[in-house]
Amino acid sequence: MIRADVLVVGAGFAGAVTARLLADAGHSVLIIDRRPHIAGNAYDEYDAHGILIHRYGPHLFHTNSDRVMRWLSRFTDWRFYEHRVLTQVEGQLLPFPINRTTLNRLYGLDLDEAGVAAFLEKVREPRDPIRTSEDLVLSSVGRDLCDKFFRGYTRKQWGLDLAELSAGVAARIPVRTNDDDRYFTDVYQFMPREGYTKLFERMLDHPHIQIRLETDFRDIDRHIARRHTVYTGPIDEYYDFRFGRLPYRSLRFEHQHFADREWFQPVAQINYPNDHDYTRITEFKHATGQRHTGTSIVREYPQSEGDPYYPIPRPENEELYQKYKDLSETEPNITFVGRLAQYRYYNMDQVVAAALKSAEKVKEALRHP
Amino acid sequence: MIRADVLVVGAGFAGAVTARLLADAGHSVLIIDRRPHIAGNAYDEYDAHGILIHRYGPHLFHTNSDRVMRWLSRFTDWRFYEHRVLTQVEGQLLPFPINRTTLNRLYGLDLDEAGVAAFLEKVREPRDPIRTSEDLVLSSVGRDLCDKFFRGYTRKQWGLDLAELSAGVAARIPVRTNDDDRYFTDVYQFMPREGYTKLFERMLDHPHIQIRLETDFRDIDRHIARRHTVYTGPIDEYYDFRFGRLPYRSLRFEHQHFADREWFQPVAQINYPNDHDYTRITEFKHATGQRHTGTSIVREYPQSEGDPYYPIPRPENEELYQKYKDLSETEPNITFVGRLAQYRYYNMDQVVAAALKSAEKVKEALRHP
Repeated sequence: MIRADVLVVGAGFAGAVTARLLADAGHSVLIIDRRPHIAGNAYDEYDAHGILIHRYGPHLFHTNSDRVMRWLSRFTDWRFYEHRVLTQVEGQLLPFPINRTTLNRLYGLDLDEAGVAAFLEKVREPRDPIRTSEDLVLSSVGRDLCDKFFRGYTRKQWGLDLAELSAGVAARIPVRTNDDDRYFTDVYQFMPREGYTKLFERMLDHPHIQIRLETDFRDIDRHIARRHTVYTGPIDEYYDFRFGRLPYRSLRFEHQHFADREWFQPVAQINYPNDHDYTRITEFKHATGQRHTGTSIVREYPQSEGDPYYPIPRPENEELYQKYKDLSETEPNITFVGRLAQYRYYNMDQVVAAALKSAEKVKEALRHP
Repeated sequence: MIRADVLVVGAGFAGAVTARLLADAGHSVLIIDRRPHIAGNAYDEYDAHGILIHRYGPHLFHTNSDRVMRWLSRFTDWRFYEHRVLTQVEGQLLPFPINRTTLNRLYGLDLDEAGVAAFLEKVREPRDPIRTSEDLVLSSVGRDLCDKFFRGYTRKQWGLDLAELSAGVAARIPVRTNDDDRYFTDVYQFMPREGYTKLFERMLDHPHIQIRLETDFRDIDRHIARRHTVYTGPIDEYYDFRFGRLPYRSLRFEHQHFADREWFQPVAQINYPNDHDYTRITEFKHATGQRHTGTSIVREYPQSEGDPYYPIPRPENEELYQKYKDLSETEPNITFVGRLAQYRYYNMDQVVAAALKSAEKVKEALRHP
């Protein structure tokens, strides 16, 4: 029997942040992960050719939260990096999200900002109410742009038509009348200077934290005497799928290295809404700032089978999740936090914020047993 | 005769930023400095004991400008660092700027935020109009706090009484009713990860930039064939003091190393408004994040003689500066920019912004000769 104040299941952002905050408060923490490494999907590593890659696809850090930025800065320095994305449409590489440049180049126009606003006003197809992502996109940019930039990408990414997805998904993507071609507009847009794995190593380097990798919760559950469990895996799996399976979208990654080519593409990410089976190609060096005579890229092939990556934002899934959530709230000694445990399409900073918040509650609970 | 499109006088922020922007635009630039190093007063170096110090006193970078942050990030990674200052008053080390903690500890109170606001309302001595720094401080915190925190420091720093200084000087310092003990509240508060000198080295590392150190403008002026001059030294010196000398405050630095002590003080900066001849002690490791078994500090002794550091914000000085400025505007082929050339108490980010702006104008001027 192993003893710890808290067992944390999963060593991604949700688990690692929780573990560190509780350890800082004096609690002993055992953190486990199924995989042979920490850092969850944010895990990065040097590939066989010496290029820092993100094994599970690109992770670009951005936040508006002072608190999250300050907290993570205990464990890393930063590289200022503003993510830029191009989308291949009809043989052209165009800025995405759609902005003034996108429209002028796609349609051979020379609109100023007011012209862009007027153009969008003309092409948009207002829908009321706005329930699905299709409603939202059509209302905002009309059918032609919807079909060229959104529909195909969504079909690949989610295996669903835009009309089958909640409006919240497309709401992540703005449309701009100016030339701003940044993918994110958060105040803080930085990459951890030595990568995410190093950040996690420092976060978990604490005398009160023990780490066990390649360890499944089911196998170890009975052998850990503890006061509290923080579970960051899929909540439906924790409850043995008793209400049914929560659908997740998965990904297959195809990594490739070019030894004789310094750069593969002009920006870190190119989207392919209409061509190929992959959604996008990411070239890591743009984001990490690494200099190397070769370069490494990853192609992402969305699929339904495999590790759970994305909760699928549809009302019936949310309803099913709520059943699990209601059940979980009847248990005082376990906390569910993170993208999988809360079935939310969280960004990294949102996971950190959620973990900081829930860890405070756990601290409180441990203080008053 | 040396040829360059542009001669830049001074290799501090104003000069180096200008040089780089013009070089990026394809112009050849010769940049000179009297000192044996680049980076102006931001120059940092490893001392004999291996600690990264700021030879000319602490430089803490902070800005609200996306543009400045993005531009400088081409040349450096960043360490998140929020500057905190304590002030020694009556034997206690109290947060500065004055906040809730400061007042509660100084007066043995237990005020909440509303209590602090009420307290300040009671002690403040409203002045109308507010012309001097004394007017401003008395109006904001009253006489006791003014005398304990501001008057002595100002006397040392400027060699003047608060009543002799423009209100703008004290306006740099806020008063807070909450517990925020950060010295700055800018969105971006970061230190260049490998220091300022490295940042400058990268900024000036460009095929179109030539650097000459230990070179005085007067000695080289006639030997440089150029189309434009960017002057970042004292504007009164450029004009041979023809309207009289602009007063600057200077500093003497007393550096000290402790080999057997990991830390000298709890935060990077402690102010001594009422004791000692120095205004403050800065311990560099807090700001740079360097780990070392020893530590290095600097004491600052303001003085009237020596290298010009601070323009002295008084109306008659501003008037005198305006004469030089008016004169300078009659000359089409020279641009004055920076703390000394514009006689402004600029922070680093403001200098960078001013240099970016003025370099754009120089570019324009070179395009239409």
